[in-house]
Amino acid sequence: RHPYLGDGIGVNGKGFHGNALQHVNVNGSLYPAKVKSRRLRWDVKPSEMANNTLNPIRAIVDGMKLTPNPEKPMIALSIGDPTVFGNLPTDDAVIQAMKDAIDCQKYNGYAPSVGYLKSRQAVANFYSIPQAPLEAEDVILTSGCSQAIELAINVLCNPGDNILVPCPGFSLYKTLAVSVGIEVKLYNLLPEKSWEIDLQHLESMIDERTSCLIVTNPSNPCGSVFSKEHLQKILKVASKYCVPILADEIYSDMVRCSSPSLACLSSDVPILSCGGLAKRWLVPGWRLGWILIHDRNDIFGSKIRQGLVKLSQRILGACTIVQGALESILNNTPQSFYNNTISFLKSNSEICYNQLSLVPGLNPVMPSGAMYLMVGIDMDHFPDFTNDVDFTERLVTEQSVFCLPASAFEYPNFFRIVVTVPEELMLQACARIREFCQLHNLHAIAGSTYGYFCIKN
Amino acid sequence: RHPYLGDGIGVNGKGFHGNALQHVNVNGSLYPAKVKSRRLRWDVKPSEMANNTLNPIRAIVDGMKLTPNPEKPMIALSIGDPTVFGNLPTDDAVIQAMKDAIDCQKYNGYAPSVGYLKSRQAVANFYSIPQAPLEAEDVILTSGCSQAIELAINVLCNPGDNILVPCPGFSLYKTLAVSVGIEVKLYNLLPEKSWEIDLQHLESMIDERTSCLIVTNPSNPCGSVFSKEHLQKILKVASKYCVPILADEIYSDMVRCSSPSLACLSSDVPILSCGGLAKRWLVPGWRLGWILIHDRNDIFGSKIRQGLVKLSQRILGACTIVQGALESILNNTPQSFYNNTISFLKSNSEICYNQLSLVPGLNPVMPSGAMYLMVGIDMDHFPDFTNDVDFTERLVTEQSVFCLPASAFEYPNFFRIVVTVPEELMLQACARIREFCQLHNLHAIAGSTYGYFCIKN
Ligand SMILES: Cc1ncc(COP(=O)(O)O)c(C=O)c1O
Ligand SMILES: Cc1ncc(COP(=O)(O)O)c(C=O)c1O
Repeated sequence: RHPYLGDGIGVNGKGFHGNALQHVNVNGSLYPAKVKSRRLRWDVKPSEMANNTLNPIRAIVDGMKLTPNPEKPMIALSIGDPTVFGNLPTDDAVIQAMKDAIDCQKYNGYAPSVGYLKSRQAVANFYSIPQAPLEAEDVILTSGCSQAIELAINVLCNPGDNILVPCPGFSLYKTLAVSVGIEVKLYNLLPEKSWEIDLQHLESMIDERTSCLIVTNPSNPCGSVFSKEHLQKILKVASKYCVPILADEIYSDMVRCSSPSLACLSSDVPILSCGGLAKRWLVPGWRLGWILIHDRNDIFGSKIRQGLVKLSQRILGACTIVQGALESILNNTPQSFYNNTISFLKSNSEICYNQLSLVPGLNPVMPSGAMYLMVGIDMDHFPDFTNDVDFTERLVTEQSVFCLPASAFEYPNFFRIVVTVPEELMLQACARIREFCQLHNLHAIAGSTYGYFCIKN
Repeated sequence: RHPYLGDGIGVNGKGFHGNALQHVNVNGSLYPAKVKSRRLRWDVKPSEMANNTLNPIRAIVDGMKLTPNPEKPMIALSIGDPTVFGNLPTDDAVIQAMKDAIDCQKYNGYAPSVGYLKSRQAVANFYSIPQAPLEAEDVILTSGCSQAIELAINVLCNPGDNILVPCPGFSLYKTLAVSVGIEVKLYNLLPEKSWEIDLQHLESMIDERTSCLIVTNPSNPCGSVFSKEHLQKILKVASKYCVPILADEIYSDMVRCSSPSLACLSSDVPILSCGGLAKRWLVPGWRLGWILIHDRNDIFGSKIRQGLVKLSQRILGACTIVQGALESILNNTPQSFYNNTISFLKSNSEICYNQLSLVPGLNPVMPSGAMYLMVGIDMDHFPDFTNDVDFTERLVTEQSVFCLPASAFEYPNFFRIVVTVPEELMLQACARIREFCQLHNLHAIAGSTYGYFCIKN
């Protein structure tokens, strides 16, 4: 039964509802002038937007049977949160800055929707370089990098537009876009070229409804860092087709080699660079992110800036305590803190890469930044498993090691390892993965020593 | 010139772009199989959503000439932020809870998108009453009450639906709804009945596309608090027409008389109650809000709950430090803190009401909660001014007192006073308003003492 009543008069004889105030006098009798239909019984359904807010990681992980082997303690290499193991605390200067911000009682009230001017200035100073200078007005503070990405997509794109998103890539772009009717086109990254963008494929995806190119550098899930030359080629494509860039640079400076930002290489392409405290300062829960507006050729102009300001007023941005601490966080965190994080991640990445390189059937790709490493699975070595989801599920039930299947990043037959786990656990996890693969590898099962001699393919 | 190239082949002879990878072999020659048009020059415009994110307060205030009289220091009675004058600090227990949450270093990582279970449990315990029990799963933590409202609207409404919003009312509802294509229908509040809802008018607005009734109680901008009987009548309307309620109860318990919540009076109507720390704990900048899901008749069911969870995953919610402090904030803030705030607001409201009641041409409405007071202007007493915007603008230029014209709440010929200002300033502001009105009142100008004798109309 349909819960609504039609617009006709007296349908059903009972549920009819006319507007009591508006009657028409016809030959001395009062008749309702306007008949409105209304709901006759409860029928509350979630909106299209809620239904279309899809989270591929949840969709895949929730569908997996993740019961660890009771004889082995669980090692989760799946969570992109550097704080979970307690081995990577933030710096004391960051903690002190927060306590000072609380004690001074100056940061309890509303901040401007785009953030305190002084905090925006601090971010501008921190990221300003001669080729890409920034002023306070070029910075918008947000509730995490996630809200920065949401605002950037929402200001640039209309329903029916499309955005270009890396594959494999961070799933939030698609989640945010699809739920508001923006189409997502995936462009390929090339594992054999350290996850550089397949520029020809990228070009072929662009059309007149392409309103934004998203570039994630350094990359989640790949851990890759683009060279200056590759970034220049990306900018050339954006420039040729006049497509603005959303640069997701939340992992910027978490790299093993110096790596420029997109903005410092661009003179014409307008760029919204999204970042935040989450990763480099190891405090993802604090929800402080930012958009840096790079627009040296005045292509965004004042309109996009105003659009961002308007969108920021919808729910306001970051917690004022964190905003109040921001200047001191940026200025007082010692270089040694950043360096320590990077060398820890480097060492762990190398351990992981070296260990898994020895495993027949696995193809780890050496990362050079962020906190991830992708591992290809030669599925024909593992007839026991139908795909990466199956593979990683069984790795949990047998070895109590959980890696995220890269289907969650629309990239089957790979899995992602988070390299923030303590070194001993990383070693143990790798040993278990190796055991697991040897057990299930077609050639190893054949009883020969082939598996040990075969050259990695 | 239009920035797009048509879909025709070879338009313009130059800007043409075929997909290099897809060619058709026709008689030995390669021809592009598919011709795509693309942008030939930069043309980046803000989205419809950004353009349609309207902020009526900003629209009105930015258009006003707000140059105070240099001989009188400015007194702003316009800002709904209780912290601006420094006379209403939060409690020490709240500060201590935050510092503990920082020190323990347990709250730096990602929380679940709906908040820590323990913090949700604390909110559930705090607001649970026998008639309206709450479990942790009925609580979703958000980035301020604003995000709670955004999620509630977004989960209940589709583009083309309409929501019922009080007039005068908080402008955010319309800002959030209109920008995503949801229609707003204003229902009237009745100043002569202490801003009760005109229930007949409310009923007349409901149709089959009405997906949510927003009730703000206590009210911004009115400072009104509904009686139990009035709340029951509102519930009856919602029940009759099967319309769920979004109860904006951010000012709950900031009242001079005991006042029930909507949820504790409802057995069938499903209610999303939105609240947060902002007002009662005097920390609006911290951006911690919540949705309490009241659904004793299982009308929302699991679908709306799941919808809310999905929407919460878009950008995640509140800062984890504030979440970590929440249990202790709710359990350790002494009753005296709440009482002190209420008696301060009561005393200031009475001062303001009593002072302005003596002013011919002004009709203040005595509030009983929140932190606002609305004042009607008999415009025919003030021929110098065309409307409330004009009136309040001139009040700034002549007397350096700024009150928000109620046009910002779609309610012309009123202005709103925020009663959180220190008592001396409140007295001074009232004296200046009185002087201003006497000077401009038609009857007072006539040189007679009429203005002083006339009985307030
Ligand atoms: C590439 C990328 N962008 C953005 C984010 C979101 O950052 P935040 O937690 O600050 O919202 C993440 C988080 O994992 C990420 O990996
Ligand atoms: C009625 C009402 N609801 C919601 C809010 C927003 O609260 P928050 O600052 O927690 O987002 C306000 C703020 O003034 C308000 O007056």
